Amino acid sequence: MNERIEKRGGGGGPGPPKPLAVVMLSGGLDSCVAAAAARREFELALFHANYGQRTLARELAAFRALAAVWGAIRILEADLGFLGRLGGSSLTDAGMPVPLDEEEPPGIPPTYVPFRNSIFLAAAVAWAEVLGAQAVFIGANVLDNPGYPDCRPEYFAAYNRLIDLGTRPETEITIQTPLIHLDKAGIIRLGMELGAPLELTWSCYQNEDAACGRCSSCLLRLKGFAAVGVPDPIRYQGK
Amino acid sequence: MNERIEKRGGGGGPGPPKPLAVVMLSGGLDSCVAAAAARREFELALFHANYGQRTLARELAAFRALAAVWGAIRILEADLGFLGRLGGSSLTDAGMPVPLDEEEPPGIPPTYVPFRNSIFLAAAVAWAEVLGAQAVFIGANVLDNPGYPDCRPEYFAAYNRLIDLGTRPETEITIQTPLIHLDKAGIIRLGMELGAPLELTWSCYQNEDAACGRCSSCLLRLKGFAAVGVPDPIRYQGK
Repeated sequence: MNERIEKRGGGGGPGPPKPLAVVMLSGGLDSCVAAAAARREFELALFHANYGQRTLARELAAFRALAAVWGAIRILEADLGFLGRLGGSSLTDAGMPVPLDEEEPPGIPPTYVPFRNSIFLAAAVAWAEVLGAQAVFIGANVLDNPGYPDCRPEYFAAYNRLIDLGTRPETEITIQTPLIHLDKAGIIRLGMELGAPLELTWSCYQNEDAACGRCSSCLLRLKGFAAVGVPDPIRYQGK
Repeated sequence: MNERIEKRGGGGGPGPPKPLAVVMLSGGLDSCVAAAAARREFELALFHANYGQRTLARELAAFRALAAVWGAIRILEADLGFLGRLGGSSLTDAGMPVPLDEEEPPGIPPTYVPFRNSIFLAAAVAWAEVLGAQAVFIGANVLDNPGYPDCRPEYFAAYNRLIDLGTRPETEITIQTPLIHLDKAGIIRLGMELGAPLELTWSCYQNEDAACGRCSSCLLRLKGFAAVGVPDPIRYQGK
């Protein structure tokens, strides 16, 4: 079982205590910037899901490095491995290749994991309810993920309605999507503005040592940095 | 890890093949009757969640006995143990006692597991999307669970909206709640009418050999059988 729950010291900086937010942090660029946005107003409880993804070990290393840098007061590395064992996605199914040298095709991409965000959000909301947190942050964005049905604003609106109906009356948790209308360049700019440690993030769908630079996630990331006009601080294969 | 995914032979009876439904089957009375209702129109894919509940082994024995009797074509025993480790419920937290000799108090009962149905439904819908199933059945009912926010019809309506928005456009899955407006006596009557094997079910929150007859779940079950005027076919402690 790949799972850890940890309670840490906590902020304790000057000023009144901040409310708590659960942040869904894969360790990738988008979730890192979403967490940096959450940090402006909230103490962080960081949530990572293990669902049998190919690059789990590298993702977890990025997640833990970010948690350490930010001084998160709680972390949860949840074992949702059953999702990978259902099959149906190239991210978790060793029999389906990760497409290389091409951006994701229109429509539902092969990396789509059925109902993934709904499962992760449900787990994060349950944790938020136990912790008394007020928000759940997710780095979803619609422009870079046009084929993913569970990255659209109307999907998150429906999820907020579900939380309202499905939790204790006194529970006030809302899903916050600070990146929802940004493209990759906009996300990188926001991250730089917030001082997010982008050099600690990991986006590659395929490799765990140096990023491949060829999967759809690497291509999107490299295009974003190129549009902003700054070098990507992580290491790429053969560079 | 307590997890199993199995593909079985399948119905193959006379007549055209039936569509497939995922049924959330805890092994309790309600979910057994919901499955019996699903069987009228669907082939069964049976879903059980391990979330660290006290009586997991006994529940699983009931689940497997029902799966065997009905000839389910798929079974999934999903490991959602992280939910139990979050704490906050007497069903999963050894430090919180299961209340005895009293029905559940008004308001949110101590057996409430935060956002549980949302997590289970998300997992079941993901599986249904991979299998191409058309429905997800759940034995929730509002009369016997007035304190559970995630057992109300408006909650399930919101969930159907979420599925509509959060899955592939061609995916047509709806949550079906055949027991939603029945009380325990009504559920028992429907189960008998459908020939559901109620003698194989398990409801006790506390014991695994003979039912305690004293936890809120046993009390509700016994009251239901008394109202119908038939004996409960399972064994109780000291009887």
